[in-house]
Amino acid sequence: MRILHHYPLCPFSRKIRLVMAEKALEVELRTVRYWEENDEFLRLNPGGFVPVLEEDNKAVVVGDYAILEYLDEAYPQHKGLTGRTLQERAEIRRLVHWFDGKFYHEVSQKVYGERVEKRLLKNGFPSTDIIREGLQNIQMHLDYIAWIVEQKSWLAGRNLTVADLTAAAHLSTLDYFGDVPWDKYPATKDWYMKLKSRPTFRSLLEDIVAGHRRADHYPELDF
Amino acid sequence: MRILHHYPLCPFSRKIRLVMAEKALEVELRTVRYWEENDEFLRLNPGGFVPVLEEDNKAVVVGDYAILEYLDEAYPQHKGLTGRTLQERAEIRRLVHWFDGKFYHEVSQKVYGERVEKRLLKNGFPSTDIIREGLQNIQMHLDYIAWIVEQKSWLAGRNLTVADLTAAAHLSTLDYFGDVPWDKYPATKDWYMKLKSRPTFRSLLEDIVAGHRRADHYPELDF
Repeated sequence: MRILHHYPLCPFSRKIRLVMAEKALEVELRTVRYWEENDEFLRLNPGGFVPVLEEDNKAVVVGDYAILEYLDEAYPQHKGLTGRTLQERAEIRRLVHWFDGKFYHEVSQKVYGERVEKRLLKNGFPSTDIIREGLQNIQMHLDYIAWIVEQKSWLAGRNLTVADLTAAAHLSTLDYFGDVPWDKYPATKDWYMKLKSRPTFRSLLEDIVAGHRRADHYPELDF
Repeated sequence: MRILHHYPLCPFSRKIRLVMAEKALEVELRTVRYWEENDEFLRLNPGGFVPVLEEDNKAVVVGDYAILEYLDEAYPQHKGLTGRTLQERAEIRRLVHWFDGKFYHEVSQKVYGERVEKRLLKNGFPSTDIIREGLQNIQMHLDYIAWIVEQKSWLAGRNLTVADLTAAAHLSTLDYFGDVPWDKYPATKDWYMKLKSRPTFRSLLEDIVAGHRRADHYPELDF
């Protein structure tokens, strides 16, 4: 079976897990301790980061950007996920970029990066100032999501797309630690609850990572 | 005519300029002072970053990721630039991600980010420690390019692709300031010289940005 080399808490891996689940593509998940020396993994991806997809035919697709576009081209089922017209596709990619780029740098890198990655990479101690900055920044993003989903059902319009899955993937990593102030953003919470209730989300909710305390509400559908 | 909202020294804008030039798409370049309050630009891109493409039909495409994929889908001429098979396309996107992600964080963000962006954003003083770390990190990347182009003509194989244009875009921003130690990496220098000699590179070499001292060798084809 095809293999996704991933790390359970990595938001970029989570995005791909969600997309593959929505496309009903079976996959074996293999956790990579990417912060350790690992020659076998470096042969697959000299960059040393996850996710990496290994197909049955041994084709290797490296990185969430290449995998996302590959899945769209290789498995055109559920085409609506990435949009049908050039304009829809541009809007969906704008939002994917928003969460993978802007949200990641302003929030995830500061909160998750300090809390988890710094420890894994043995790269110094977490800075509470940086974490606080990330938790401050998340508010604008939760507000932005609320503003959009109050007008439309989903981020890019009337249908669920990879924009929603990308945003949810990033938020789910933070939510594992209880770092998302849902109650202040009810519209965003409703949107996230719709995503969390999908069967395709289940695998994420079952993640338990040793050494990282999971917030009690994390797996609950009613949170 | 279509408009590219950009900033001359932004590596992501430079990538799109190179791709559009290779596809022979005419475009008017409009410089955005993205670090200033600018309601007109925020209406085009609420994220406030460049590049943004505005088409003649008023379609707006935001961010280098969406624009790159949009150009591939909307203007299929010179299709080789993004690869023909799924495997070629995955390899090209792996490399684009390498330079936009890994290289940007390990090098550009530290060198260009400290030297230029911090000043524009009035976000504190440049840290010489961080700049030094970036200049240290660039060596592995120059070595990686050398290792590839010694085996193949271009980064993704026998043809020029957006992987080369992305790598060159990032390097050209650093080269503006004289931050690339070309002489230690002759194979990388040869590869860059081939790119720099292309007519499509000319617009980048003509960039002069007030307030930022340009290295003397920057516009020279024989450097």
